[in-house]
Amino acid sequence: MNTPPKPDRIQRLSFGFMASKVLFSAIEFGLFTELAEGPLNPGEIQKRCGLHSRGVRDFLDTLVALEMLERSGEVYSNTSETDFYLDRSKPTYIGNYVDISRLREYQVFDKLSEALRTGEPQNEIKSGDEDWVDALADPGTLRFFLRGMTGHSLPSAMAIAKEFPWAKYRTFADIGTAEGCLPVRVAMAHPHLVGEGFDLPTVRPFFEEYVASFGLQDRLRFRVGDFFKDPLPAADVLVMGMILHDWKLEVKMTLLKKAFEALPSGGSLIVYEHLIDDERRKKVNGLLMSLLMLVETQGGFDYTGADCSGWMREVGFKEADVEALIGVESMVVGIK
Amino acid sequence: MNTPPKPDRIQRLSFGFMASKVLFSAIEFGLFTELAEGPLNPGEIQKRCGLHSRGVRDFLDTLVALEMLERSGEVYSNTSETDFYLDRSKPTYIGNYVDISRLREYQVFDKLSEALRTGEPQNEIKSGDEDWVDALADPGTLRFFLRGMTGHSLPSAMAIAKEFPWAKYRTFADIGTAEGCLPVRVAMAHPHLVGEGFDLPTVRPFFEEYVASFGLQDRLRFRVGDFFKDPLPAADVLVMGMILHDWKLEVKMTLLKKAFEALPSGGSLIVYEHLIDDERRKKVNGLLMSLLMLVETQGGFDYTGADCSGWMREVGFKEADVEALIGVESMVVGIK
Repeated sequence: MNTPPKPDRIQRLSFGFMASKVLFSAIEFGLFTELAEGPLNPGEIQKRCGLHSRGVRDFLDTLVALEMLERSGEVYSNTSETDFYLDRSKPTYIGNYVDISRLREYQVFDKLSEALRTGEPQNEIKSGDEDWVDALADPGTLRFFLRGMTGHSLPSAMAIAKEFPWAKYRTFADIGTAEGCLPVRVAMAHPHLVGEGFDLPTVRPFFEEYVASFGLQDRLRFRVGDFFKDPLPAADVLVMGMILHDWKLEVKMTLLKKAFEALPSGGSLIVYEHLIDDERRKKVNGLLMSLLMLVETQGGFDYTGADCSGWMREVGFKEADVEALIGVESMVVGIK
Repeated sequence: MNTPPKPDRIQRLSFGFMASKVLFSAIEFGLFTELAEGPLNPGEIQKRCGLHSRGVRDFLDTLVALEMLERSGEVYSNTSETDFYLDRSKPTYIGNYVDISRLREYQVFDKLSEALRTGEPQNEIKSGDEDWVDALADPGTLRFFLRGMTGHSLPSAMAIAKEFPWAKYRTFADIGTAEGCLPVRVAMAHPHLVGEGFDLPTVRPFFEEYVASFGLQDRLRFRVGDFFKDPLPAADVLVMGMILHDWKLEVKMTLLKKAFEALPSGGSLIVYEHLIDDERRKKVNGLLMSLLMLVETQGGFDYTGADCSGWMREVGFKEADVEALIGVESMVVGIK
């Protein structure tokens, strides 16, 4: 009898949804926030998070095996990663993005097969024109979405604040800014810069509240605008993060052209996304994000760094280079 | 500014549910079955699987990145693992187990937080006595469940057929046999053995059909029985696979005692499960399976090899040793 191949990749992959859910529950319970104050034993965790004794050890040890917690003797503590990103009381909390996965994407993505069969989104905008404004008319939903976007953007925003040669520039604008996560990170790191957050009018109070919480209201202002109807702000640097992937190619090209037109000569456009590797063989998160755009948008898709730099050159940028950021995302920098 | 920790573990884990769903859809579409006949390009795959052009490349390249497919130029083919385990036309197909995850566990596990708060299962047996017979009264549901159990058991059954010293024994019985996956694999590999599948009466036709499809009806017979009400069959070797984890400790001990009583001196009990590593730090699938028992049963839980060999010694087995199997599972062998 020949030795059969190992089934372990299939077995691990088919249990992946449960691993995600364990992380989602831990964030929901505020577990990492509790542990940020110091290590706790299972009994203390049960009390603070309101858990039953039956599953608590399995729950905590699963988080250890997933490298989300550390365990020493009988006490559990955060890893440096979960302490930094999943403690609600820190400004670097990204759990609001994970909450979107827990409360929305887990259910919408259950209809992946139907989306693959029809090419149509499987959310509330299943037919008709896609319109974020309608979907986000309720202020509670809008806040939930905007906070999620802050969690989504934060690791890249921190890396862009650090890696991009901001010393060369004086002004910047973030297109589709949401709460202003990127402008805040950039302004904090570079006191010489003045920036704008560009977004729809309903977003303004959330941006202003967030920016003021960092004391940056003197250097960061909100500019009301619709990137389809209005010209983009004139600034030395424009940024589009997790914007282009929402739209079909024709719209992507329109937005890149508008950015090119708005920039001065020598100005830069930074696009950051879950870029797919050029060979489309490795970056699982970029490819999955593109499938999420399939179930959530009319024509959106994610793309490789080579795709994006090609499009940038096509609309006139003289340089367009790809650079990896801190997590699973990358940026493409175009210079006019 | 200090360099912040990388968020990539959190980012990958929080996208894990999408990775599972991509595998589930591929199995639903019969993709690996189509590719078992030979490599195909995206257009051919679209036609054979009934897919829309929009998402097909992202879908296929995600499967490449997840190591479920290979790609050479424009054509996609199975890996040796997916060809062996996910081609419906092979008797080694395990996709029926993955279908249970797709059609049932994905939805039930969405209630993990509630289960962790209450300690109660979140399925149709949310209150009252757990009763598999009631839940599986519909023959279609029963067939779906039993086929799933074959997919679940197959890798371990093949490994046990190969690794266990069957030459020393003449008879065996599989307790809670379902379709008889393990008896079939053992009987195929060892022509000197005669075996029994022990299960509830409704299971009989499914067992007999499956066993006959391998032409093994002369050496494998079905024995009607309820492992709570009836004594276990007398055989040189008894096997319990994915049985003990369904029940609380008291019931686990009762079943181990009954196995000990039924065996002759020198006889063996094989328990195979998704055992958790003794340190409870590494085996993610074993820990997740235990959380699945939380949402699906009244008191079930998975356990370590040390737990199980301890229980076996407690009921009288003189030896009880743990051995890894082919995939993520392991077995514990007790000798009376």
